[in-house]
Amino acid sequence: MTAVKVTIWNEYLHEIRNPKVAEVYPDGIHQAIASGIRSEEFEIRTATLGEAEHGLSEQVLKETDVLIWWGHMAHDQVDDTVVNRVYRRVLEGMGLIVLHSGHCSKIFNKLMGTPTCQLKWREADEKERLWVVDHAHPIVSGIGEYIELPMEEMYGEHFNVPAPDELIFISWFEGGEVFRSGLTYRRGQGKIFYFRPGHETYPTYRNPEILKVISNAVRWAKPARTAAPVYGNTSPLETIKEKK
Amino acid sequence: MTAVKVTIWNEYLHEIRNPKVAEVYPDGIHQAIASGIRSEEFEIRTATLGEAEHGLSEQVLKETDVLIWWGHMAHDQVDDTVVNRVYRRVLEGMGLIVLHSGHCSKIFNKLMGTPTCQLKWREADEKERLWVVDHAHPIVSGIGEYIELPMEEMYGEHFNVPAPDELIFISWFEGGEVFRSGLTYRRGQGKIFYFRPGHETYPTYRNPEILKVISNAVRWAKPARTAAPVYGNTSPLETIKEKK
Amino acid sequence: MTAVKVTIWNEYLHEIRNPKVAEVYPDGIHQAIASGIRSEEFEIRTATLGEAEHGLSEQVLKETDVLIWWGHMAHDQVDDTVVNRVYRRVLEGMGLIVLHSGHCSKIFNKLMGTPTCQLKWREADEKERLWVVDHAHPIVSGIGEYIELPMEEMYGEHFNVPAPDELIFISWFEGGEVFRSGLTYRRGQGKIFYFRPGHETYPTYRNPEILKVISNAVRWAKPARTAAPVYGNTSPLETIKEKK
Amino acid sequence: MTAVKVTIWNEYLHEIRNPKVAEVYPDGIHQAIASGIRSEEFEIRTATLGEAEHGLSEQVLKETDVLIWWGHMAHDQVDDTVVNRVYRRVLEGMGLIVLHSGHCSKIFNKLMGTPTCQLKWREADEKERLWVVDHAHPIVSGIGEYIELPMEEMYGEHFNVPAPDELIFISWFEGGEVFRSGLTYRRGQGKIFYFRPGHETYPTYRNPEILKVISNAVRWAKPARTAAPVYGNTSPLETIKEKK
Repeated sequence: MTAVKVTIWNEYLHEIRNPKVAEVYPDGIHQAIASGIRSEEFEIRTATLGEAEHGLSEQVLKETDVLIWWGHMAHDQVDDTVVNRVYRRVLEGMGLIVLHSGHCSKIFNKLMGTPTCQLKWREADEKERLWVVDHAHPIVSGIGEYIELPMEEMYGEHFNVPAPDELIFISWFEGGEVFRSGLTYRRGQGKIFYFRPGHETYPTYRNPEILKVISNAVRWAKPARTAAPVYGNTSPLETIKEKK
Repeated sequence: MTAVKVTIWNEYLHEIRNPKVAEVYPDGIHQAIASGIRSEEFEIRTATLGEAEHGLSEQVLKETDVLIWWGHMAHDQVDDTVVNRVYRRVLEGMGLIVLHSGHCSKIFNKLMGTPTCQLKWREADEKERLWVVDHAHPIVSGIGEYIELPMEEMYGEHFNVPAPDELIFISWFEGGEVFRSGLTYRRGQGKIFYFRPGHETYPTYRNPEILKVISNAVRWAKPARTAAPVYGNTSPLETIKEKK
Repeated sequence: MTAVKVTIWNEYLHEIRNPKVAEVYPDGIHQAIASGIRSEEFEIRTATLGEAEHGLSEQVLKETDVLIWWGHMAHDQVDDTVVNRVYRRVLEGMGLIVLHSGHCSKIFNKLMGTPTCQLKWREADEKERLWVVDHAHPIVSGIGEYIELPMEEMYGEHFNVPAPDELIFISWFEGGEVFRSGLTYRRGQGKIFYFRPGHETYPTYRNPEILKVISNAVRWAKPARTAAPVYGNTSPLETIKEKK
Repeated sequence: MTAVKVTIWNEYLHEIRNPKVAEVYPDGIHQAIASGIRSEEFEIRTATLGEAEHGLSEQVLKETDVLIWWGHMAHDQVDDTVVNRVYRRVLEGMGLIVLHSGHCSKIFNKLMGTPTCQLKWREADEKERLWVVDHAHPIVSGIGEYIELPMEEMYGEHFNVPAPDELIFISWFEGGEVFRSGLTYRRGQGKIFYFRPGHETYPTYRNPEILKVISNAVRWAKPARTAAPVYGNTSPLETIKEKK
């Protein structure tokens, strides 16, 4: 079995500019996730906003089976050329895992067709409990009935996304809200998983269950290696009766 | 019961430029549909590409409950300002019925998040048979097991759209293809129905069953008058325990 | 417009046997709902377990457009003949609204194909907040962002039902659970709505918003009057080439 | 990686009683499929109606990750005890692949909640073309845009099943019908795939593409090894405020 090629993309600004975040993720969120999901099944690289082409050249994306995306304060600085490149690759079969504030990214917005930035939010050190509602899904393999995070940022409904193909987690928040926290979508030949938790000031990406979900999602989202459909004008497969 | 306010938008170029099409639709596709669905339940107006703001000013859209869209050769000439205006109105609850080659329009593409222009097609006077696969849906009220059209343009899979919320019709074509021909989607507070048939050289929009489906779809797509969600930073509804 | 014929079925045992319940619903839950949704759009009758054929004769069901179902302690006493009769009528297009503990009824179980009795529950006078997650749906017409019930029985995930066609409400509970509280399904020509709230010791069916949801659901679930499909051996519609 | 334990169940009556079928499948459909999907990834056994407990004892099912089901003329002879045993195992996570006329089996009917026996059919040596409509799905890995079968029994819509979680194939038939031919469902912790082709008089289960789809489906349907939910009365996870 060949390894799944994973690229973890991170904006990587909070960790540099904010000492409180640097304390939680000294090497950046991308490195925390990379260490956390390390496995001989995966071949992992990272990319960040500050690199040339944000680290997502044609070549890198061509060699990527699954792209993980974390962004927050600089969504607008992501170049449209790169966004369109990622878009095309998803349609060709590359898996995409959008984490937390990535809901507001250009790429997620473009793939959903709705203003995905729209949701309720609050930073108040709230307990979050992610309840599994689809126990048949490989993304929750090895996970119990729920994952509890002692403190997280709250995201609350309404979340302005299309009805997902599959709803896997629903979050309960201490302050009174709920959220659809684990959602799958298919676009073209590609599979997309949105996973809610991961505010930069909490060590969420060190939580073994959160990391397990991300690992499972990588396996689930890898390309199915199906045929690329042919589009456009086409000849009939059957003989069509002559019309008078 | 107040009437549903319907705006029928048509590119209205084929009918002017091509005598063969003018013969089929002397007053334009928009007028054919308007006559065909006339009812005291509906208050109908039309709009075309050539009018100022394509006939879709803020005021017109504000007064529109359901917008019907037919376009083909001039998708690129539709102004982005108007596209964004329609987009916002759909999210606010305006129904949208996209007909035939409207699959390639900017607005449908934007709402779907996929390159909806991608499908197979062929102009060969083929028989199309639209099989009902969801007999519980109000859009097929009064329709039999299938609708048969003696001649139509063929559209074939793969059609590059997200998996629909509801699949209502599947077309069979003489030349060997199938197509998902009646699809519903929800985006924000709005409902969308894509309906395949209606090539400009055939009298499809005079077919009583096709018109019945469009009428049913208007009733189905009208705004639900639900609350507009509030987005952004929010206070907790419950008392959150003091954290140490 | 002809009135929608609604039959409200109630087990009607708690109200007779338990003085605490009798105080909340002196005439039974069925009468509370009947008064609560009264409208010239509806023609309402009620039926209870104790009546001959549980009040659901062939004739009554034939004249029913939408059946509302509340049961709890006597699911097993519902005759299989009646269950099968309701089942057939749903497949023919009769709408079915299953309330609260009706999740455990024979008819809901049969239509879902899963042991729908399986969920978590607790009677602890908890606050429930039903968040709307589908603002495009006619079932939430006139409803705000959420419905708050000061005290209800808790139902928690995992709820062992198939993934719904549409998810409309998600409940938040004070004690830490969430629940998919408003679910739609289509079976044959019939539409089904499961709506969670309504424990017999609370005045939930006097809450104007809960009653509004039930009224909306009746309108949504009424038969679409579509063609009944023909099943079985069939002749080809097209000439099939002779095979050698 | 441990092998996936596959049990192929076949009614095995046509092959014994009908010389024409015996010619196509001399060792039975179960053996044809077993040879066809042979791989070191799978540990395959077979079971037939005529064996004690139809070859599906508690022990066998306990050791089965994915069950493949082919039946036709003797659905009624399948013991309800065995049906209920299979049902429980699917809910616990065992995958189930239902082939062709298995649509009419007790187990598929029970899991769907609809009279799944209802569809149109015809035996006329028709060409079938199974179009892929979901190119992101692992079940079509390695498959082209469609699979063509020169002769098959026709199954036509309407097929009385719930709207599937995922629609993967749509069939085109020479005689004028279409059919939803590849459908997925989740029930409890189990995954189900219905796959249409496979009439006993045609060598469909020797077709390499059909066998590839079945192999892919086995991989897809294997248990996700998720936690079994706990049902019933439960204590609050959070402190509920004292009510007056």
